[in-house]
Amino acid sequence: MAATEAGRTAAVIVIGNEILSGRTVDANLPFLARELASLGIALREARIVPDEVAVIAEAVNACRTRYDYVFTTGGIGPTHDDVTAAAVARAFARPLVRHPEAERRLRAWYGEERINEARLKMADMPEGAALIDNPISTAPGFRIENVYVLAGIPGVARAMFEGLRGGLRGGPAITSRTLTVHAPEGEVAEALAALQRAFPDVEIGSYPFFRFERVGTNIVLRGREAARVAAAWAALVERVEALGFDFEAETGGGRG
Amino acid sequence: MAATEAGRTAAVIVIGNEILSGRTVDANLPFLARELASLGIALREARIVPDEVAVIAEAVNACRTRYDYVFTTGGIGPTHDDVTAAAVARAFARPLVRHPEAERRLRAWYGEERINEARLKMADMPEGAALIDNPISTAPGFRIENVYVLAGIPGVARAMFEGLRGGLRGGPAITSRTLTVHAPEGEVAEALAALQRAFPDVEIGSYPFFRFERVGTNIVLRGREAARVAAAWAALVERVEALGFDFEAETGGGRG
Repeated sequence: MAATEAGRTAAVIVIGNEILSGRTVDANLPFLARELASLGIALREARIVPDEVAVIAEAVNACRTRYDYVFTTGGIGPTHDDVTAAAVARAFARPLVRHPEAERRLRAWYGEERINEARLKMADMPEGAALIDNPISTAPGFRIENVYVLAGIPGVARAMFEGLRGGLRGGPAITSRTLTVHAPEGEVAEALAALQRAFPDVEIGSYPFFRFERVGTNIVLRGREAARVAAAWAALVERVEALGFDFEAETGGGRG
Repeated sequence: MAATEAGRTAAVIVIGNEILSGRTVDANLPFLARELASLGIALREARIVPDEVAVIAEAVNACRTRYDYVFTTGGIGPTHDDVTAAAVARAFARPLVRHPEAERRLRAWYGEERINEARLKMADMPEGAALIDNPISTAPGFRIENVYVLAGIPGVARAMFEGLRGGLRGGPAITSRTLTVHAPEGEVAEALAALQRAFPDVEIGSYPFFRFERVGTNIVLRGREAARVAAAWAALVERVEALGFDFEAETGGGRG
């Protein structure tokens, strides 16, 4: 919708067989979705892909040409199923090379006793990659052009993202307001469609819920211009009152 | 990997701005991932896309030609932001038409008092679609060729999937065994790579964890041939014992 297409955009690529097999529930996408929204960067798409070089490379190439930022999570550890660096190298048609500073950090962290070839593999990155600091467990992520390669372990992914945050350019923050209407979605649908026509620059989402056997609808207004969101909100309240439904304002962030 | 590429494959497309904005944490993908695995259907990819006809249609077309099954969730309600049916119709280049049986069910459920044009919109589907029953709130999902269109509300999506389960053809169930090794991933990586070379038909995943300040690695073996998984398991235990690490067997399904 117009409201979130203005400004910067992003995609997230979650890499890992364990997510697709149902073994692990991904926590990185919800985190990145919230963080990007708070920066005014519109997350436009996410993909979850297996630990396979060709599939990851294809997803990276599909997303990096289309969005301002691409964030990947997972697949940068020391084992045979960690193939993200090789996949990103293939996507950019660059050789995979050992990054000297990454190697230095790994050798310092593990010491001569514990460093081995598997651990050094974590220093292999596409040529020209810039390191992303890992304050938790040292092994760095990396950035190449607009692609940011983060760890899969949620605590490490978060720490890496925190370090990047200051360097990411968003648009104006997205303003969000939620109205909870105690009426089924089907009875406010017409009013919402009319409101959407009147405010094409405000994204109007409608999320039905069944809570303690009460039926209702959370209506979420989102946009980059706070004044327009406020105007749409006032018009919405007026329409809902005219329909005679009870309603309450939420502070946003609730689940619909 | 070979182990999960044999047999039937699937993709899941989660539709909804509320997931991408971080407002709602999706629960349908973890559910479908587990269910498909239990049916022996390999989930190969998932995409999360916004409520936009062109973007949804493109994702549906990318996935339906590539995988045996495609499941979508979300965007089939009565409001203006429910555009999944229109998007799937566009993907198949078919007109969107009112399904007579879906209309009949909606009219019976809501009654003449409460039926309205917004609610009848939930009977609009691509020409030739077959209904997917909704035992919770009546408004049906639909199937067209290999694309199954489910609701976004998790309880409804689950009920719809339960009804479909008997008609889905999987391969032999995937056998999964997990070994927890009390050693860092980087110290078992070499052994795992050798094991993967010896058992190319068994998918070997490695997931490090930090738990109560103990470092360890969950090693997950998955494959369609139980005997091969058992043989790989025995070889893995032998290698880990030779390395002198403590380990314990898990029943699987834990989080790595």
